[in-house]
Amino acid sequence: MDQKKVAAYFKSFLHKAELNLSVDCVIFTIQDDRLKVLLTQLFPDSGWMLPGGFIRKDEDSDTAANRILLERTGLNNIYQQQFEIFSDPGRFSFPKPKPELNLEDFEGIDLSLLPDRVISIGYFALVNYESLHLTGGLFEEDAYWSGVDELPELNYDHHKIIQHAREALRKELYFKPIAYNLLPEKFTMPELQKLHEIILGRTIERSSFQKRMLKWNIYERLEERREGVAHKRPYLYRFDREKYEEAIRHGMRFGI
Amino acid sequence: MDQKKVAAYFKSFLHKAELNLSVDCVIFTIQDDRLKVLLTQLFPDSGWMLPGGFIRKDEDSDTAANRILLERTGLNNIYQQQFEIFSDPGRFSFPKPKPELNLEDFEGIDLSLLPDRVISIGYFALVNYESLHLTGGLFEEDAYWSGVDELPELNYDHHKIIQHAREALRKELYFKPIAYNLLPEKFTMPELQKLHEIILGRTIERSSFQKRMLKWNIYERLEERREGVAHKRPYLYRFDREKYEEAIRHGMRFGI
Repeated sequence: MDQKKVAAYFKSFLHKAELNLSVDCVIFTIQDDRLKVLLTQLFPDSGWMLPGGFIRKDEDSDTAANRILLERTGLNNIYQQQFEIFSDPGRFSFPKPKPELNLEDFEGIDLSLLPDRVISIGYFALVNYESLHLTGGLFEEDAYWSGVDELPELNYDHHKIIQHAREALRKELYFKPIAYNLLPEKFTMPELQKLHEIILGRTIERSSFQKRMLKWNIYERLEERREGVAHKRPYLYRFDREKYEEAIRHGMRFGI
Repeated sequence: MDQKKVAAYFKSFLHKAELNLSVDCVIFTIQDDRLKVLLTQLFPDSGWMLPGGFIRKDEDSDTAANRILLERTGLNNIYQQQFEIFSDPGRFSFPKPKPELNLEDFEGIDLSLLPDRVISIGYFALVNYESLHLTGGLFEEDAYWSGVDELPELNYDHHKIIQHAREALRKELYFKPIAYNLLPEKFTMPELQKLHEIILGRTIERSSFQKRMLKWNIYERLEERREGVAHKRPYLYRFDREKYEEAIRHGMRFGI
């Protein structure tokens, strides 16, 4: 590991960041009919973890979450929301520079100001796998999508953060039809149903599902069908943001 | 205002607290058929606000929320949960000691370490009005219950925190039957229904409400009736925590 690079990294955020406040992003996608999350490591053998980073002094947490996601993954403009804050005093001790680092690289910075704990704000994000183009962040030499049921060992309390994010996603589905963020712009009802089944972890009866989805009037049926599915040519739909906003104003619930 | 008292207050938490991290508690109760929240002021004319305080260095946020509630109101062992973090950089600037204070009272404390912003974790709590016995906190010379629709001018972003807490409470009712915390230990179905109507802000059809509540099997009907209601003697019920925990394990939803 390049010592000067580490020092520069520390230096760059020591003055700009709230060092006891971070954001961790649980980025969900669906691939091969499984719910997956993005894991990264800062450098080889540093351990798998969620993409995350420190909040800057002049940022609110939403802004920080979006910036960190962009910096660490290249993802921009995607659906993301805070769901819980993780504040166990023992959850994370700040990675103080190791003795083998040349501390002169940190000149002018009082390392004693590093806090003894970091509180993290958990965000979850939803992305469509096919439209993903990940780019590496500063230290990111590795990243991969892991099934939420096949997680490797993770740093800190990131296992817990992922499980809580999954519960939060399930809950949120009752109030906001956010699942479409996991699909391409145009999708079929069977695809939307499959998605709900994967997230909720249970099967859903087909006709009542479709009836409910269409009753909400927030999915616009297009004059196009999905071709190539043997003997079936299901209609394509598109999420209608305007109608959704109107439904929300009327206090609509979206329970499955 | 007693200058020495203010200085002692600052001193007492400067060393113990995460000065950029606070908890604000939205304590809901129902009185006269209206949803109300507890407002306090630190000292006369300091402005109305939510009971709150700084998280200590060795505390997680749940512990802090319970301690602060106890210190500021005397309430102990009540239902409370985090619902959102408020992190707008401009939401709260730390109340730096005013020039008229005698800074010698702060000897040994570097006031330049006071942060430029404070991020707050919003908690909401539910309490039964009749069993309340508020006791004043350190600076608390005033506290009162305000209807959520008749709030006075509030300090900081506390108006927003209360509105978001109300939305979070409404949402949470779909997943946890927490409303009983607002009632005495024994209650009637009409009382439980009234409570839901007040929180959700809409009327609910009586027979379908009772059918649903009883189907969940988490309210135990007692061999007692509420006396004194003209011509009606409705049965009393009690929340059954064991059956509730079991229902939760089976993934039950509690949508109204």
